[in-house]
Amino acid sequence: MSYWIWFPGDFEIYQLMKQNFSREERRFDWPAYWHATSWNHNVRFSRDYELVEPATFYVSAKGKGYVAVKRLLTEGTEQVDKFPFETEITCLPGAVTIEVIVCHLEGLPSIFVSGKMIYSDGSWLSSNYIEHSQPVGTSELFTSHEQNPMEFPYTHEVREPDNEEFTEGGLLLDFGYDITAVTLLEFKERFEPMTLCYGESRTEALDVADCYLKQVVETPDDVGLEKVDQRTFATRLRAFRYIFLPGIRKEQKNISIRVDHQYVDFGPGSQFTSSDERLDQIWQIAERTFRACSSIFFLDGIKRDKWVWSGDAYQSYFINQYSFSDKAIVERTILGLRGNDPFKQHLNTIIDYSLYWLISLEVYNQTFGDRDFLERVYPKMESLLAYCLEQTDENGFIYGRKDDWVYIDWAEFDIEGPLCAEQMLLVRAFESVIAIRKILNRPVTDIERKLAILKTNIQTFYWDADKKAFIDSYESGKRNVTKHANIFAILFDYADEKQVDEIKQHVLLNSQIPEIHTPYFKFWELEVMAKLGEYTYVVDQIKAYWGGMLDEGATTFWEYYDPSETDVSKYAMYGDKYGKSLCHAWGASPIYLIGRYLLGIRSTAPGYRQFEVAPQLDLFDQLSCMFPVGEGEVTIELAEGTLEVRTNVDGGTLRLPNQTFALSKEQPLTITL
Amino acid sequence: MSYWIWFPGDFEIYQLMKQNFSREERRFDWPAYWHATSWNHNVRFSRDYELVEPATFYVSAKGKGYVAVKRLLTEGTEQVDKFPFETEITCLPGAVTIEVIVCHLEGLPSIFVSGKMIYSDGSWLSSNYIEHSQPVGTSELFTSHEQNPMEFPYTHEVREPDNEEFTEGGLLLDFGYDITAVTLLEFKERFEPMTLCYGESRTEALDVADCYLKQVVETPDDVGLEKVDQRTFATRLRAFRYIFLPGIRKEQKNISIRVDHQYVDFGPGSQFTSSDERLDQIWQIAERTFRACSSIFFLDGIKRDKWVWSGDAYQSYFINQYSFSDKAIVERTILGLRGNDPFKQHLNTIIDYSLYWLISLEVYNQTFGDRDFLERVYPKMESLLAYCLEQTDENGFIYGRKDDWVYIDWAEFDIEGPLCAEQMLLVRAFESVIAIRKILNRPVTDIERKLAILKTNIQTFYWDADKKAFIDSYESGKRNVTKHANIFAILFDYADEKQVDEIKQHVLLNSQIPEIHTPYFKFWELEVMAKLGEYTYVVDQIKAYWGGMLDEGATTFWEYYDPSETDVSKYAMYGDKYGKSLCHAWGASPIYLIGRYLLGIRSTAPGYRQFEVAPQLDLFDQLSCMFPVGEGEVTIELAEGTLEVRTNVDGGTLRLPNQTFALSKEQPLTITL
Repeated sequence: MSYWIWFPGDFEIYQLMKQNFSREERRFDWPAYWHATSWNHNVRFSRDYELVEPATFYVSAKGKGYVAVKRLLTEGTEQVDKFPFETEITCLPGAVTIEVIVCHLEGLPSIFVSGKMIYSDGSWLSSNYIEHSQPVGTSELFTSHEQNPMEFPYTHEVREPDNEEFTEGGLLLDFGYDITAVTLLEFKERFEPMTLCYGESRTEALDVADCYLKQVVETPDDVGLEKVDQRTFATRLRAFRYIFLPGIRKEQKNISIRVDHQYVDFGPGSQFTSSDERLDQIWQIAERTFRACSSIFFLDGIKRDKWVWSGDAYQSYFINQYSFSDKAIVERTILGLRGNDPFKQHLNTIIDYSLYWLISLEVYNQTFGDRDFLERVYPKMESLLAYCLEQTDENGFIYGRKDDWVYIDWAEFDIEGPLCAEQMLLVRAFESVIAIRKILNRPVTDIERKLAILKTNIQTFYWDADKKAFIDSYESGKRNVTKHANIFAILFDYADEKQVDEIKQHVLLNSQIPEIHTPYFKFWELEVMAKLGEYTYVVDQIKAYWGGMLDEGATTFWEYYDPSETDVSKYAMYGDKYGKSLCHAWGASPIYLIGRYLLGIRSTAPGYRQFEVAPQLDLFDQLSCMFPVGEGEVTIELAEGTLEVRTNVDGGTLRLPNQTFALSKEQPLTITL
Repeated sequence: MSYWIWFPGDFEIYQLMKQNFSREERRFDWPAYWHATSWNHNVRFSRDYELVEPATFYVSAKGKGYVAVKRLLTEGTEQVDKFPFETEITCLPGAVTIEVIVCHLEGLPSIFVSGKMIYSDGSWLSSNYIEHSQPVGTSELFTSHEQNPMEFPYTHEVREPDNEEFTEGGLLLDFGYDITAVTLLEFKERFEPMTLCYGESRTEALDVADCYLKQVVETPDDVGLEKVDQRTFATRLRAFRYIFLPGIRKEQKNISIRVDHQYVDFGPGSQFTSSDERLDQIWQIAERTFRACSSIFFLDGIKRDKWVWSGDAYQSYFINQYSFSDKAIVERTILGLRGNDPFKQHLNTIIDYSLYWLISLEVYNQTFGDRDFLERVYPKMESLLAYCLEQTDENGFIYGRKDDWVYIDWAEFDIEGPLCAEQMLLVRAFESVIAIRKILNRPVTDIERKLAILKTNIQTFYWDADKKAFIDSYESGKRNVTKHANIFAILFDYADEKQVDEIKQHVLLNSQIPEIHTPYFKFWELEVMAKLGEYTYVVDQIKAYWGGMLDEGATTFWEYYDPSETDVSKYAMYGDKYGKSLCHAWGASPIYLIGRYLLGIRSTAPGYRQFEVAPQLDLFDQLSCMFPVGEGEVTIELAEGTLEVRTNVDGGTLRLPNQTFALSKEQPLTITL
């Protein structure tokens, strides 16, 4: 099979730039406000062949250039024959090198070589004329010469609204839940000017003056309209649940509106049903939310930014494992986020987001265990690491510089001097780097030394024995305590048993310490509580917080939810009346918490070559679940006091309180409880 | 006046990439075979204003984004209003910051702001989100909102052939001399398939099988054809003197061919006529050649590469001074060649070409004296310098690494170890860096130290007192002598008086030393002879070599000329039957040699604020010349024993043997000889 091939990483860089340039807000475009690293515009592809018979091949390309067939002649000279693209080329038997030279001023240089013997795939090499012999990039999604790697092959589904309602002097269309779609305007008679008001909520769509996304359609030649056929026009891609058409009245309806829902189909994925209907409902909405936010890359949300944020993506890597467990989207997101060397700016300008990227490599390995990918991304791991090390002080602490954003969370930290939570992430990043280097047989002593010093200094500078907590920072002398660093300390196993108990009592369960407000950090807080065995607490929290959104009419989960906000203010964020995203990836964290902790499924060796299932059976009377584990899946059925666990792969273990069972491939294990 | 603005250097990088991707050869595209550095795809522009009255402005952009008007409110908060492009925006009086955010996936982010108070020009700042507050780039050529900085405003002239001839079973069109043009095919009746065979020479055009550029026109929908109107089709841009249409016979001529000559109009420039008709003729052809090869950038030639080569461009900087003396093309070429940081590959992969780039900054300063430009290019000078210094050895010698091309000239050097000629260029580059740093008030002691060591070591390692010559290299022990390093030694004043005499006798005039074969290095050889006062030798050489080309029918000067080649072999080069360029920039060097040495015009203070005129009056009975000197010009008239020198600027000196005269602005100086 032939693949489209490109210089490694460039497809992801190109597509990520396109994605980060796609945001729309209140009639204008809003590009992501950080440096956009570029792909290579000039590339040479090559592969050596030993042909035992004549071979015919054909080269298609995006870009301009030529094909060179190089053959070493017996007298030591080289014969080079050059051909244009889109020509049938025949090689005689013997040793030949096929070179394809492609430049592309506006886009991504890429080629597709088809032939019986000579065809393009991952075995080709590429050069950007500085880095030579790089194994090319490919994708399972690009295997036809008619494709164009600059156009992602989304799945399309033309949909009618679930409901049409004439209200407030216009027509309100309801598509049931948030989707990303092109609006198709079909005029029964002639073209007619109109206004499209979009909303994730009914309130927003009906707010003609202030809805976030709106298009005033004036003429058939509008810049923002594409003519599909004589009577049909398409808008740009937007995310919405509702469309309101002010002024459209029933008796004069000349317009029919459908939408072309565009998405990436990640296949069936995991299943979860239980005796807890509320939890099942939360699972379903979380699953829908997560799929809506998973595209070429893991996005934050679908209405507003649609940018690839490293912190958000990092959480998605965890959710993904317990959902459709797609390997390609993780690789695309890791490569796209990282961009090209030289590394000159933290990911999304945020120090912690660079550190999450480093940590994500170990998460990737634990989930997918693909050494080849790690080998390919390795140089970029080292350059990002080097960039971070440049901004560490004499204690080994990483500190913010001008233009760096020290984020961690939307919370009130004492930000004077290096922040404890950042150091926790740095430790975790070092551990990840050590793990990856070990897999790739690279020396680790330099980082092991730094890690040891850093861990000691964190205890020395940040642990407050009186407060029984890690403090935010030490330079100001305020010794302020927030939950964040303490959550990391437990999550990453940097607190000893005594400290864990102290943190639990004096920080996590201490009402004097400010609460976590964002679902982003609630992710880690709930994970820590689950890790500490507080499963009932976790279930209650999930049902209260996410259930609360359901009570507010959510059909996808939100960026942020404050139960006290019940009027229109619940849609506001970042000073914008409708600035809140109502379909946000991190809102899908119950998938992870349920799969990882309530069902206790986890990879215990790279790529789930070994894995564990440890369901909290006390919580459920009935369960019917299926989860991906590496190349296979595991199902958990609980009914009438009988537990059945099945898997179609090796390496599984069922862990129940005081009992452990090996799971055998294709041999269901049934236990009467 | 409003200007289009962009991130500094990006316009040149974009256009240079376009240029280096434009080469065509034998039916395919041939991108330049080195790394193409990219422009910035995401840029923020800004300017602060203190408005005393309301101001209205309008923003056009290439790319997507928005306009933000920021105003600091009295209570200390900032009010930000955002607007789409192409909207009239009004600002109230007071202090405001206008920010324009633009991204461009496929092209160059650029904006054009028009308004009475608020408009875009060189006073705006830009950021690529890593480098902030960079003064924007502009061009005098882009001052209308209808323009597009990605499309260069070439001058167009539709031309008919000078001559049509039915021969060899087809129609041969002769446009008199090489031009770069689109071919316009106008069919009197219906479209007809045909073949276009291009040639810089008649022989090439008539060689249907082997001509370098050929287009087989098959259908009106051919990829390589653009429909201009119902009956007219345009080809891609090519350089040629002749077009041959095989199979077109007089009686059935359905086709009319014109060409759209595309060029950059550099204005009238210098003039030279003398009592030496042959020299005048050479001057005219050299001038035509140089103009043909001067486009957005200084190109090597027009038919084949059309790439921007740093060595070729360096020679053009000298010729330019004595021709149309355009400052903008020099700046564009310097910026385009240099590309973006990080500097990861020598210019055109050639070490000497990086060094010429460094030297060109001092040449630029001497010619144009624009400190602002030097300030802007300064960081890129330092990064290129740092890259070169990384590959110097314990003697301070620069050596070639893997993937570096140590070129100097097409000649047989002893290339074992560091090459002497490269060290001569490195010394010259250090001198240039020191000069530029001094102008910009930066410290120079580090480079002065390196320079001193390098000069001493060159004498120690390369000067051969027995051979009375600088040897190529010392590692092999061969002590091989070529002219190149010795030419540089005199040209750059690194040889003492005794050495100069010795080199002249034992190298330059020594028939045992291999001759210089390329017009590229003949440039420096003749300059050295001129510098040594051998004017008659120089005139004789010009008339023999360039005159020889005229005798061969040249209407522009060639890339290479060997008087012994008189058959079709004279068109061959690089193993290609028609591989030689017959219109090549370095072929125009007589312009420089005549202006700089025969007329003795030279800048003696940056920007010609002081200059000298020292004509070799023995060589001419009559002269009527005009040359640019900084912002003005100097004319030299010699007739019937009377010399008149006029200038419209200050700072001039006329230097005759044993006599020196100050030239006064607008006051002709007349001398009876």
